[in-house]
Amino acid sequence: MQINKFNILETKNRIIADNDEVASRVRKDLSDKNIFFLNLMASPGAGKTTTLVRTINAIKDRYRIGVIEADVDSTVDAEMVAGTGVRVIQVHNGGSCHMDADMTLQGLEGLGLQDLDVIFLENIGNMVCPAEFDVGASCSAMILSVPEGDDKPLKYPLMFRVSDVLLINKTDTMEIFDFDQEALRKRVADLNPDCEIIPVSALTGEGFDVWIKWLTDRIESHRC
Amino acid sequence: MQINKFNILETKNRIIADNDEVASRVRKDLSDKNIFFLNLMASPGAGKTTTLVRTINAIKDRYRIGVIEADVDSTVDAEMVAGTGVRVIQVHNGGSCHMDADMTLQGLEGLGLQDLDVIFLENIGNMVCPAEFDVGASCSAMILSVPEGDDKPLKYPLMFRVSDVLLINKTDTMEIFDFDQEALRKRVADLNPDCEIIPVSALTGEGFDVWIKWLTDRIESHRC
Repeated sequence: MQINKFNILETKNRIIADNDEVASRVRKDLSDKNIFFLNLMASPGAGKTTTLVRTINAIKDRYRIGVIEADVDSTVDAEMVAGTGVRVIQVHNGGSCHMDADMTLQGLEGLGLQDLDVIFLENIGNMVCPAEFDVGASCSAMILSVPEGDDKPLKYPLMFRVSDVLLINKTDTMEIFDFDQEALRKRVADLNPDCEIIPVSALTGEGFDVWIKWLTDRIESHRC
Repeated sequence: MQINKFNILETKNRIIADNDEVASRVRKDLSDKNIFFLNLMASPGAGKTTTLVRTINAIKDRYRIGVIEADVDSTVDAEMVAGTGVRVIQVHNGGSCHMDADMTLQGLEGLGLQDLDVIFLENIGNMVCPAEFDVGASCSAMILSVPEGDDKPLKYPLMFRVSDVLLINKTDTMEIFDFDQEALRKRVADLNPDCEIIPVSALTGEGFDVWIKWLTDRIESHRC
């Protein structure tokens, strides 16, 4: 079904013996095609879509971009991302709390890999389940927004462990919320010393120079 | 293991044929004992613990209260709630993204039902999975915080469908965020016209008179 400028795909529930095997296949296929693939994870409302739109606008003159928008329901995020002019597919995954490698493969097939340098997956808004499933991405990014609080690595450690980069979003609200950035950094370092931490505001653009440099360095090297 | 003033329980992974059957048993048992049981659900960082602490302090002179704190890891929320002086158990549920009826039953057994009028379950921070599992509660409450945005009913409809009451939390930040309360109310009403919507600030106490009245009315009638 064509709505606006993107397709909507309802994923099929196929029986997959080994998620990691499918993920490895996805990763190798994209690598062979010189496509960089970022898995973006966060809680609902952390600012995944706003971050993605600003990121796309910053690099779309340099790279050909495709986006898989994964949601339980609705097309609001896909509509926002489609406004940037890049290729988008909306995936509805049957109410699941995460994307697995096979759902991702279906999304990639629906999007089409031709004429793309970079693909973003906006995962389901959830700080637990998506961290458990390798989707075959080149790199994993997560967002924690300031209003959510600095204690989240203590309560949801896995996503912080598996992410290559953590964006602390909504830094423009840092004055309003009781958010201890040093405590957060220490908690993340305890779980994952290699995780890069970049404070940003997707609303104002603060910190995006650092984030875009981090990202484009990885796009050029095709890996984390 | 005793830490401070609460026990920590690691739930056992027992094979349960029918979650709803266990949930019905929990509900009947609590009802027979005149105990009101509230299931509190929300995304990470929406303010479940802060709301719970203010709620407990408002009613603890009238009711004997017990709390089940469910988390993937850590005891930070249980420590905060234990500060109110009520009975608390910290449940770690093996990394699961939700509490099911059997995990809840284990938590209730660990907490002990003697000398209690009201039990709160603070569910895992997650806007998807907890909505799928009846835990045997008398009523289900959810929190959506202003920074998360007014579009959430479109993207995560199930939790809004199964909740008896929705607290819009962090109203003290309403001026800072682009949050359309009327749009939110319409989206919730489309999914669940019976859901009561109460704006509150767990930080300042704004709106708590309405929330506490809603809650104590249900505690007195033992149901929603």
